Amino acid sequence: MRYDYSIYLVTDRAYINDAALCDVVEQAVLGGCTMVQLRESNISSLDFYHLAKEVKEVTDKYEVPLIINNRIDIALSVDAAGVHVGQKDLPAAAARRIIGQDRLLGVSVSTLQEALQAQEDGADYLGVGAMFPTRTKRDAKIVPMEVLCAIRREVRIPLVVIGGIHKGNAAEFAKLGADGLAVVSAILSSPDTRRAAAELREAFISME
Amino acid sequence: MRYDYSIYLVTDRAYINDAALCDVVEQAVLGGCTMVQLRESNISSLDFYHLAKEVKEVTDKYEVPLIINNRIDIALSVDAAGVHVGQKDLPAAAARRIIGQDRLLGVSVSTLQEALQAQEDGADYLGVGAMFPTRTKRDAKIVPMEVLCAIRREVRIPLVVIGGIHKGNAAEFAKLGADGLAVVSAILSSPDTRRAAAELREAFISME
Repeated sequence: MRYDYSIYLVTDRAYINDAALCDVVEQAVLGGCTMVQLRESNISSLDFYHLAKEVKEVTDKYEVPLIINNRIDIALSVDAAGVHVGQKDLPAAAARRIIGQDRLLGVSVSTLQEALQAQEDGADYLGVGAMFPTRTKRDAKIVPMEVLCAIRREVRIPLVVIGGIHKGNAAEFAKLGADGLAVVSAILSSPDTRRAAAELREAFISME
Repeated sequence: MRYDYSIYLVTDRAYINDAALCDVVEQAVLGGCTMVQLRESNISSLDFYHLAKEVKEVTDKYEVPLIINNRIDIALSVDAAGVHVGQKDLPAAAARRIIGQDRLLGVSVSTLQEALQAQEDGADYLGVGAMFPTRTKRDAKIVPMEVLCAIRREVRIPLVVIGGIHKGNAAEFAKLGADGLAVVSAILSSPDTRRAAAELREAFISME
């Protein structure tokens, strides 16, 4: 099965104030988001589980894959399409063993070495970043543009770029061969989620 | 398979200062601990995974079951004997679905209703507590002794009591029909882990 990684929303409830996350996700999907990653910390496992079930009702309705960040048990319990692990989460190879072959495995990388390792460990796609400094993840390492190019050249699996991506730089990454844009604030900090997603998609696909 | 719940160590690295957790667990097992639950928070998934692998080498060596608290993905990735969930973790029924029938499922309860629900949802054993106020878990609800007795009367699966258990009150719980004592500080705060475990075991089995 081929997946459309082009507009990949990563959630962060800190951005949406009192709005219900599932409503925000629905607007983003209506605007053109093609994949949704639920990334939540400072939440009990029970609350994460219920939130994941709610969001999955929306993603199922629109047939958009739901990916769960870090918590593979939550992913399995709600039958999510996949999981995404960072370099401080379960190792990719261990994650692959427990999710099986049918769920997507994404891995965050910020160096060529991490990218090659993740591909070898069974990743289906890579999240490469942070491309720019970002308020969403202040401790993120910045990936120089030449490292992104090297990763694009050396790995064969899809890449999404993350960290400071917005409609103003979306086209640049499309030209560099990114398969998608992973964004948090570019969509969630907008007062019009649907439009923000649509504009990002427009900027990206115009250059693909 | 029948399990021996009698001396059930729950870990908390806050108690062991700079000692290696696997060394402390080994001493506790040599003293007579029959089951070990790894309960860690404020730790990355990667560190939890490595810690679980280390501790499992010790528990495997002595053929003591290793239970992982909350993080079912960690349990699956290290092939632990079971998982333990609290009321704010994944619901017991969801946990059972993803661990299958061969791993142990423990559930923390503090009321009769929670106990009956957990049994219905597929728990193999219950952790009942907190029996007494405890520094280890300050927000824990206290279970009145009559509630423990009601749970013992109404549920058929094994019970371990937790929260403020020590060698001075161990015998009392053996008489009430508890299948085991779950302890953190009674073992981990002792300068002699092995002896603390042995004394607790002695106090418990003398009255069984």
